[in-house]
Amino acid sequence: MREPDTKSWRGVQTELLRRINEREWTPGSLVPNEIELAQEFGCARTTVNRAMRELADAGLLDRRRKAGTRVALHPISRIVLDIPIIRLEVEQRNAEWRQNLLEKTSCVPPASITSRLGLDSKTTMLHVRSLHYADNHPFLHEDRWMNIDALPGVETVDFAAISANEWLIQNAPYTTGDIAFTAMNANKDIAEILEAVEGVAIFVVDRITWNKGEPITCVRLSYAPGYRMNTKI
Amino acid sequence: MREPDTKSWRGVQTELLRRINEREWTPGSLVPNEIELAQEFGCARTTVNRAMRELADAGLLDRRRKAGTRVALHPISRIVLDIPIIRLEVEQRNAEWRQNLLEKTSCVPPASITSRLGLDSKTTMLHVRSLHYADNHPFLHEDRWMNIDALPGVETVDFAAISANEWLIQNAPYTTGDIAFTAMNANKDIAEILEAVEGVAIFVVDRITWNKGEPITCVRLSYAPGYRMNTKI
Repeated sequence: MREPDTKSWRGVQTELLRRINEREWTPGSLVPNEIELAQEFGCARTTVNRAMRELADAGLLDRRRKAGTRVALHPISRIVLDIPIIRLEVEQRNAEWRQNLLEKTSCVPPASITSRLGLDSKTTMLHVRSLHYADNHPFLHEDRWMNIDALPGVETVDFAAISANEWLIQNAPYTTGDIAFTAMNANKDIAEILEAVEGVAIFVVDRITWNKGEPITCVRLSYAPGYRMNTKI
Repeated sequence: MREPDTKSWRGVQTELLRRINEREWTPGSLVPNEIELAQEFGCARTTVNRAMRELADAGLLDRRRKAGTRVALHPISRIVLDIPIIRLEVEQRNAEWRQNLLEKTSCVPPASITSRLGLDSKTTMLHVRSLHYADNHPFLHEDRWMNIDALPGVETVDFAAISANEWLIQNAPYTTGDIAFTAMNANKDIAEILEAVEGVAIFVVDRITWNKGEPITCVRLSYAPGYRMNTKI
């Protein structure tokens, strides 16, 4: 076996991860303390501490001030999803992207929208709906409400020339967001737009973003039937 | 404004991130080079380099050896999903978890399973199906195939006493996995199991894990209608 480089914290981390993954240290068992590990690896105690920090953050180690550190009984799979702009997501599938702007109106949204954004129920917002295509097949329907007050000039943007999705990424910073994935039966309207049959199961993404507490936008993406969101562990 | 601590790489990173997020540096624009930034921040050039590395990895900066570093034109939203064991996912929703083991048989799986796992089409595998409940309502159906050769003793485990999901987490290390999220119309069998109507849209997770290239398990989780997978950006 190749000797790990246990002089660096990354080397130590790799070795600790190996012991956890290969069940050399079993779930729930007590891990040697930092002094013992530093001696074993011939490194500084701070190096061991640094190596353990991310493993604890990732839920693999359970650190208790007095009771010592244990291998987590219930490790969590942490997966990372990269969500590119829609045009790039289509192009990454080797398809040609285009969009068709279906609606751009300033109006008062349904109460469910304003309440989720924490806005007054009489707030006028910009409603933009667009159908994104992959190789001339509907790919997804973007149904978006934008906070006009937080987006100066947004009402004059030509969203037929640049998708709202792309314009926001380039022009509107955000600091936090909520995202939810769910499955829904397509209603008559969405089915028609996506050129699908009513009732077919579609993958739906609901997303709200804020900039330092100020609501920016809320969007529902309804993907055409058969869409799969893939990633790796 | 609070002065950032630009002596540490994390402090520099926070300040660079602020400039990107607040569009002080606009998408596509050239960023000052490391020497200039080190002078501005009064820190070592290596500190700037360290701060930029993760921003580049995260797709926020676009580094070119000779052309310099630019703010990415198409930043990617990177979201992190924590996938706990099913029992904990139910308990985190403040519900009581239990499972009902529906099937445990050793048999040759459909060719679609063996081919996805890269196994010979005549390989005998362990098929375990279980219904997980939240407060006595069906929560999800776990339909799992396990590689007997890679999991010594798996055929004798009492999966009514411990769910296959939990047993694997505690006993079977894995190094890599593929995961896919999709929406499906419930067929008659799944609808009956989930106490739902045929055709209802359900959220489905397909997952395959390997340990150093050896296939461990492939599972389909079919969630009861209305399930939402929530996370934060």
